[in-house]
Amino acid sequence: MSKVFVNIGLSLDGYMAPEGMTLEHWSEPEYKGWGAKWGSLMAWALKQQYLRENLKLGPGGETGPVNDLLRRTTERIGANIMGKRMFDQGEHSWPEEAPFHTAVYVLTHERREPWVRPGGTTFHFIQEGPERALELARGSAGPRDIRIAGGADVIQQYLNLGVVEELEIALAPVLFGGGRRLFENLREPGPQLRIDRVLENPAATHVRYVRS
Amino acid sequence: MSKVFVNIGLSLDGYMAPEGMTLEHWSEPEYKGWGAKWGSLMAWALKQQYLRENLKLGPGGETGPVNDLLRRTTERIGANIMGKRMFDQGEHSWPEEAPFHTAVYVLTHERREPWVRPGGTTFHFIQEGPERALELARGSAGPRDIRIAGGADVIQQYLNLGVVEELEIALAPVLFGGGRRLFENLREPGPQLRIDRVLENPAATHVRYVRS
Repeated sequence: MSKVFVNIGLSLDGYMAPEGMTLEHWSEPEYKGWGAKWGSLMAWALKQQYLRENLKLGPGGETGPVNDLLRRTTERIGANIMGKRMFDQGEHSWPEEAPFHTAVYVLTHERREPWVRPGGTTFHFIQEGPERALELARGSAGPRDIRIAGGADVIQQYLNLGVVEELEIALAPVLFGGGRRLFENLREPGPQLRIDRVLENPAATHVRYVRS
Repeated sequence: MSKVFVNIGLSLDGYMAPEGMTLEHWSEPEYKGWGAKWGSLMAWALKQQYLRENLKLGPGGETGPVNDLLRRTTERIGANIMGKRMFDQGEHSWPEEAPFHTAVYVLTHERREPWVRPGGTTFHFIQEGPERALELARGSAGPRDIRIAGGADVIQQYLNLGVVEELEIALAPVLFGGGRRLFENLREPGPQLRIDRVLENPAATHVRYVRS
């Protein structure tokens, strides 16, 4: 059966996104320095050949173990789940060929018809909550896995449902001082985790935790 | 000159201590499960031969790279600085031969004569603030380094003074869901860090960050 996993970048102080990184200030990356902070969080990924190709950022990029990790992670995904805020931000940022190439289930209160993008990405807007979104994702992922893409509040919901089997974190050596924390609002007891794998790199420490 | 460093255990969700771990509930480790949580945070250390010997926990223990790391870290310390809460808790927990074997500067508002323990540990109670404590620590550390031992609020004060040169974190694969966070109340811009070294272990991921 498909596994449910999270794969995100995290600042050393535990933030998924810096303060000021909201739709309202999307065109002002200098606002509270959010653009520079986001760049420092994602630097490890943005210089990888695979991501550069997928996001149409241009040729070149690294092709070592971190690139292999990105490729393997992307290739295992059969469906994505995300929150409305993440979708709204992505709608302003993704290339026309949105970088998912799977069904994407967007948790929202708004009704909207499925939005089909070139390259195999279709966004489905789900009003019936996270469990229903997961059910639909399982139906469309086939033998591949389901990625809870974010943001923080959506990941928290799935952690609290007890369905997250793997938590992959790229811990970047940056301090944001504020923003959206990943680990908040968690129900007790939380998942029991063990360290499955660590990949060292100067730009981030990649740790995979699996539910034990 | 002596370096100023931090070396701590941290839960994956960023806590140095679980909720309920206060002097008031010191003899009730079952209170909010703090004893079990603390044990899971420090499991990596408590099974090392060097720490078992230093804390008089009994013979045996691991003697691999994590044990070497603990030994090297301890041997580089010429003086410790800690907060009053950490001291108060330690006063209830340390063996008579307190496990520091250096001068320890305790930040407090209370006046108290230096407290000399067998084995070379002397606690000095400093009312004049963190900068004065650091000055005194530099005076007594000789060529060795100065460890900011904790708790979270004291580490935050030294991070905000901009004097912390190395930040060593043993990131344990546990979620506390609440407690004392390390990374809060940080002034911007915080220190610029780079990853200096990662040591993998099933019980914790040991990452050293140095100011760049």
